[in-house]
Amino acid sequence: MSRKVIKSVTNLYDKKIERLAEVPDEKLPPLKNNKELKYIGRGISRIDGYDKVSGTAVFTFDKILKNMAHARILRCPHPHAKIRKIDITKAMNIKGVIDIITKDNTEKIDWYDGDTFIFDEHLRYQGDEIACVAAENEVIASMALKKIEVEYEILSHVTDKMTAVKEDAPKLYDWGNISPDANPAKYNRGDYEQGLKNADQIIEEEYNTQFVIHNPTEVHCSTVDWNGDHLTIWDSTQGIFAVRNSVAAALKIPQNKITVIKKYMGGGFGAKLEAGKYTVMAALLAKRIGRPVRITIDRKEMNLAVGNRPDSYQRLTVGVKNDGTLTALGMTMYGAMGAHRDGAGCQWPLRSLYKCPNVKVEEYHVAINTGRSRPFRAPGHVQGTFAFESIIDMAAEKIGMDPIEFRLKNYAEVEANWEIPWTTKLLKECYKQGAEAINWKSKRNKKAGEGKGPVKRGVGMASQIWWGTGGPPAYATVKLNRDGSVHVLSGTQDIGCGTYTILAQVAAEVLEIPVERITVSLGNTDEHPYGPSSGGSMTASSVTPAVYDGALQIKAKLMSGASALLGVREDNLVYSQGVIYSKDDKNKKKSIQEVVRETHEQILVATGARNARPQGVMLNSFGAQFAEVEVNLETGKVKVLKIVAAHDIGRTINRKLLENQFHGGIIQGIGYALLEERVIDHYTGKVLTTNLHNYKMPTIKDAPEIEVIIVSEGDDQISAIGAKGIGEPAIIPTAGAIANAVYNATGVRIRTLPITPDKILNQVYNIG
Amino acid sequence: MSRKVIKSVTNLYDKKIERLAEVPDEKLPPLKNNKELKYIGRGISRIDGYDKVSGTAVFTFDKILKNMAHARILRCPHPHAKIRKIDITKAMNIKGVIDIITKDNTEKIDWYDGDTFIFDEHLRYQGDEIACVAAENEVIASMALKKIEVEYEILSHVTDKMTAVKEDAPKLYDWGNISPDANPAKYNRGDYEQGLKNADQIIEEEYNTQFVIHNPTEVHCSTVDWNGDHLTIWDSTQGIFAVRNSVAAALKIPQNKITVIKKYMGGGFGAKLEAGKYTVMAALLAKRIGRPVRITIDRKEMNLAVGNRPDSYQRLTVGVKNDGTLTALGMTMYGAMGAHRDGAGCQWPLRSLYKCPNVKVEEYHVAINTGRSRPFRAPGHVQGTFAFESIIDMAAEKIGMDPIEFRLKNYAEVEANWEIPWTTKLLKECYKQGAEAINWKSKRNKKAGEGKGPVKRGVGMASQIWWGTGGPPAYATVKLNRDGSVHVLSGTQDIGCGTYTILAQVAAEVLEIPVERITVSLGNTDEHPYGPSSGGSMTASSVTPAVYDGALQIKAKLMSGASALLGVREDNLVYSQGVIYSKDDKNKKKSIQEVVRETHEQILVATGARNARPQGVMLNSFGAQFAEVEVNLETGKVKVLKIVAAHDIGRTINRKLLENQFHGGIIQGIGYALLEERVIDHYTGKVLTTNLHNYKMPTIKDAPEIEVIIVSEGDDQISAIGAKGIGEPAIIPTAGAIANAVYNATGVRIRTLPITPDKILNQVYNIG
Repeated sequence: MSRKVIKSVTNLYDKKIERLAEVPDEKLPPLKNNKELKYIGRGISRIDGYDKVSGTAVFTFDKILKNMAHARILRCPHPHAKIRKIDITKAMNIKGVIDIITKDNTEKIDWYDGDTFIFDEHLRYQGDEIACVAAENEVIASMALKKIEVEYEILSHVTDKMTAVKEDAPKLYDWGNISPDANPAKYNRGDYEQGLKNADQIIEEEYNTQFVIHNPTEVHCSTVDWNGDHLTIWDSTQGIFAVRNSVAAALKIPQNKITVIKKYMGGGFGAKLEAGKYTVMAALLAKRIGRPVRITIDRKEMNLAVGNRPDSYQRLTVGVKNDGTLTALGMTMYGAMGAHRDGAGCQWPLRSLYKCPNVKVEEYHVAINTGRSRPFRAPGHVQGTFAFESIIDMAAEKIGMDPIEFRLKNYAEVEANWEIPWTTKLLKECYKQGAEAINWKSKRNKKAGEGKGPVKRGVGMASQIWWGTGGPPAYATVKLNRDGSVHVLSGTQDIGCGTYTILAQVAAEVLEIPVERITVSLGNTDEHPYGPSSGGSMTASSVTPAVYDGALQIKAKLMSGASALLGVREDNLVYSQGVIYSKDDKNKKKSIQEVVRETHEQILVATGARNARPQGVMLNSFGAQFAEVEVNLETGKVKVLKIVAAHDIGRTINRKLLENQFHGGIIQGIGYALLEERVIDHYTGKVLTTNLHNYKMPTIKDAPEIEVIIVSEGDDQISAIGAKGIGEPAIIPTAGAIANAVYNATGVRIRTLPITPDKILNQVYNIG
Repeated sequence: MSRKVIKSVTNLYDKKIERLAEVPDEKLPPLKNNKELKYIGRGISRIDGYDKVSGTAVFTFDKILKNMAHARILRCPHPHAKIRKIDITKAMNIKGVIDIITKDNTEKIDWYDGDTFIFDEHLRYQGDEIACVAAENEVIASMALKKIEVEYEILSHVTDKMTAVKEDAPKLYDWGNISPDANPAKYNRGDYEQGLKNADQIIEEEYNTQFVIHNPTEVHCSTVDWNGDHLTIWDSTQGIFAVRNSVAAALKIPQNKITVIKKYMGGGFGAKLEAGKYTVMAALLAKRIGRPVRITIDRKEMNLAVGNRPDSYQRLTVGVKNDGTLTALGMTMYGAMGAHRDGAGCQWPLRSLYKCPNVKVEEYHVAINTGRSRPFRAPGHVQGTFAFESIIDMAAEKIGMDPIEFRLKNYAEVEANWEIPWTTKLLKECYKQGAEAINWKSKRNKKAGEGKGPVKRGVGMASQIWWGTGGPPAYATVKLNRDGSVHVLSGTQDIGCGTYTILAQVAAEVLEIPVERITVSLGNTDEHPYGPSSGGSMTASSVTPAVYDGALQIKAKLMSGASALLGVREDNLVYSQGVIYSKDDKNKKKSIQEVVRETHEQILVATGARNARPQGVMLNSFGAQFAEVEVNLETGKVKVLKIVAAHDIGRTINRKLLENQFHGGIIQGIGYALLEERVIDHYTGKVLTTNLHNYKMPTIKDAPEIEVIIVSEGDDQISAIGAKGIGEPAIIPTAGAIANAVYNATGVRIRTLPITPDKILNQVYNIG
């Protein structure tokens, strides 16, 4: 048919298909060495800095439309109940109340993969949705919530996973409380029992990690507007296409009838990866009342209803020879996924951090009467790494080996689950450079708890492995204007991490033009080619190659055009800073502006796509973090003095943004290690920590000195760019490193997070 | 370099370059026959109909931003003056006035190709810009205008072109009043003098046409907003990229730093083809005051300062043999371009409508002290066709030949200026079908003016030729969602003619999916690939082929993917309504949704481009219009009873929208023929018709019965779509047909437009 794909036809038929967009005649050329790069890797300030600093940045929360109504949700105050009756009469009579929707006056819309409906008569947690009010303002809407009369049938509840798995526990579903189908998820490798027999030492320990809440700065919110049969949604989301497609499915309309827009966002951390029920409710109300609707959830709702990191009970077993060889790794794990199905597992670090032939895992994903869990920055890996790297520390101590030596002894040269090589793995270098930076040898040269006085210091470390992502399809359109300035468009989103800036850097690098001459547009499902959800450290790793591809296509067109205009074959041309020269005669040249103009084009445009994942190799990022802590044995308070984060994350795109990300991840990790916890009163089934006073998040005063070391250069075959992603790595090993440092300082091993003063003091003084 | 253009490199080097985007391996396949088409050609209602009917459509005039200031322009009340002094003190003291800019406090910015500055001390027409006020609202801004004190040096003025060309006339420029360089534009073909000698009859006549004003429904307006160094402009414009590039040049910033947006517009007719001074003023003010600025010009300003159709004096000479053969055509023409350079010519109909070997043209483009002319729906052709088709009518009468016979006798089989063939020319068919529809033979079977009573009827006709456009680059991106719905993006604009709808139809035709599943986004310079300005009947003709190309690329990708998934070679596959079947086994099939999903894509995306113009052929549209009129010789009033418009415009994309366009063009042509005129008092140099009370536009009561006949099918090599454009054709021959009908009815030949009752009566009763 059309010329542009004609070549691919035979390829596709003859070869095994991988990606339709991706039928490369040859691989994209790799980037130059880091030192030769002019834009990529540099610490360029955010190109959206002005918007943020000046306050002109429009976040979804700021999106105000004319004649807009405001919506608020009535949520169940009980952990488990059924609705007998809802009476909205009194609420509707309040002046300024426009409409109220409930299960009684809306169609049933499946939600959470059929676990429930947008409005369900079965309420499974404190915070479950009952009604949604549209009013002239939020105050009236909130008042109306109190006037909706609901008659409940109170059901017995269970808010603790270890209770929920018991036979006589209240059940949330017909299928029980263990997902799926009452059975644990299992994994076996080698012969675990034999591995234990081969061990000289067997260490068994129990660990517990707490629920934590994402609590991003910007609360979840949507503003929705129908125009005829077209719905526009401004959403505070990590995935505009995910929201569009879910809402389209819920409302049973085609995807082209919904536009989802997100320009700026105050964080998500995984809590905003899917469409919210609130968005659908706003859409339903807006349709009924014929007005735009803004809906926000408040901090209390955020702490109840829109996600958390699942807790965990982990019973770990390590078999080890006296020479340090791991012979067996075992794990039995229970994690609470809340009232609806979601992954609560954390087995991956144990399965893939070290070489060990014999592994056995049993994971129970348990439904309880609390808000549903959701992915939270390095889901599973954070819980798993804390426990596993704690027990590894203990194993090393038990055989009298330095923890780093022990890890090197069991260094995995190939990925253990599939026995395939990694694209790159520079973890050894992380150990080396991290240890040097924290001054490991001299500081660790003492027994745990040694030293005088009540204030003890110690160092500890932990490793991390994360999915070196960049797998999913990502597309980016690059447009070159006649004046040589450039637009980059992609349907990904900047959730605060700097996506606008890094995409500009990639285009700048290829076309050799200043970042100021590049405008990046993100976050509109109508206008932009698909970009993946911003999660799993996958934005940079998947979208930068697409921009690279698009920019290279533009450059190739320019070279091709210049070749014709100058009458010089392409291999005799050289491209430098927006000018194409003949190698033989530097006076024979065309600027990119001239090429566009003289080929009678108004713009050049190309859409690039991320290549398919390389097959037969494993993509992971790696890192080691080193913590130095000070523990006051009189107060039990832990102060983190320094974190050294040494990582192999592939290519650094922007050093400044990378440090931002690592600082954020480390501080969030400190919150996880020392402060944060969702506390539930199991008797009433109610959450006690629903505001930022009771729920303790770290502040700048809790932030230690942080040193970020990137050991990788970027020559990774993951893509031509070679970026593995930096969102998750920093948080993963932080709690483990701190726990190990606390042990090194005090001789006290805390197995239950967070490491609060009471737990330290209890152990030091042998209380409880 | 990159795969997608690798094939083109050799082509470009080896072949003469035409367009960089366009290096087709083969031509795009032509569309099917009209009868087989499912979407193209059908009278599908506007897909933006809901927006328009419900009132939710946001026009630029409706664009309100938070904290917005309102700007108004102080304009010169004199036709010619210099500014001695401006004092803004009193105006600035008015409460609510925020800022005032003038030549004294702004940098000089070149405008009108260096003819003047945004603020110039030399004021060349009533309406020339002096100052711009930003205030809290428009009322305050208007009050402030009256308080700005300007001391003028009044200069002598000239507001009539025939006076302006005299030696002692006041001069607007150093170079005089005749552009360029005091010389007329000349054209010669063959031997004009010899042609006259060969003639049996020589007819010489003088014609005058008036100035008319575009007067679209929506006045010119912009809302501008700076965010740091980035400027967003919502503009009521026919060319978002033209505005962006002009403002970027004026402000000396790169094009990527300006976003121009236009969603809906209330018409332009050529008056909104360029950036307005007002837009630049708003941008300057917004920068100074740090607030968004909305600027509108009112109806008076529109009638003074933002364009008009130039007037004309045309002395025409026709040499003709008694058998009807044209031997010579001569034209001396004067047209007033107003105070700044712009084309005022109208020679093309005379040069290209008929076969004539000997042609001589002299055109004077004259500067006078009035607002500048601008292209106005079929610029030049409207003035030229009225005069030329009037004299052709007289020539036919002189030798006693039917006007249609006479035109057929001189039918041009090839384009006369370059002697190259047309892509298609079906003008004969227009004559035939048009004549039948108006019942020419029976109605024309009388002498001019024959018949009893004061109310006379008559029929007349005229032909048209217009640039069969579609030359300029145009691009469109097509995105296919996983659910099979589609987005079409193009940086063209819908100025009210239905662009949204016709682009959806083209994508629907190729992909065989309903129009409802296609969303079209237009009018954003950041988000969309370049589309041409909406003028010259070129939107449909240039953008539909780009959409066609993009959709074909998507279809080819789908076929290619299905081929691989089904294991069936492409030539054994058939595409039908979104499903791809094996020809041999109808059960072997994949829906387009399956192909996208199973090739691991999230979307398919392709940017199409309009092909380069075919070389060695001429692209024109043709048509003939037939008017039946009734003239009351007691009142002098002309009533148009019926217009038959028979045209060769290539492919019809949407029959309903086509009729809209033709009705609009014909009614506008009636305004030109009978009603509209900008009247100037030459003594004071002031315009007397600056509102819609004094400036008479046709209303629905002036609309006749209209019959639109399209003789063309669309098998034109102009592009795979074959659309020649329909914006201009209908207006071009309307005045000529009416004038000829008036003559046929009354025996009175009106040579000066508009044909007002006074002119009829003056001739009938031999007055004046």
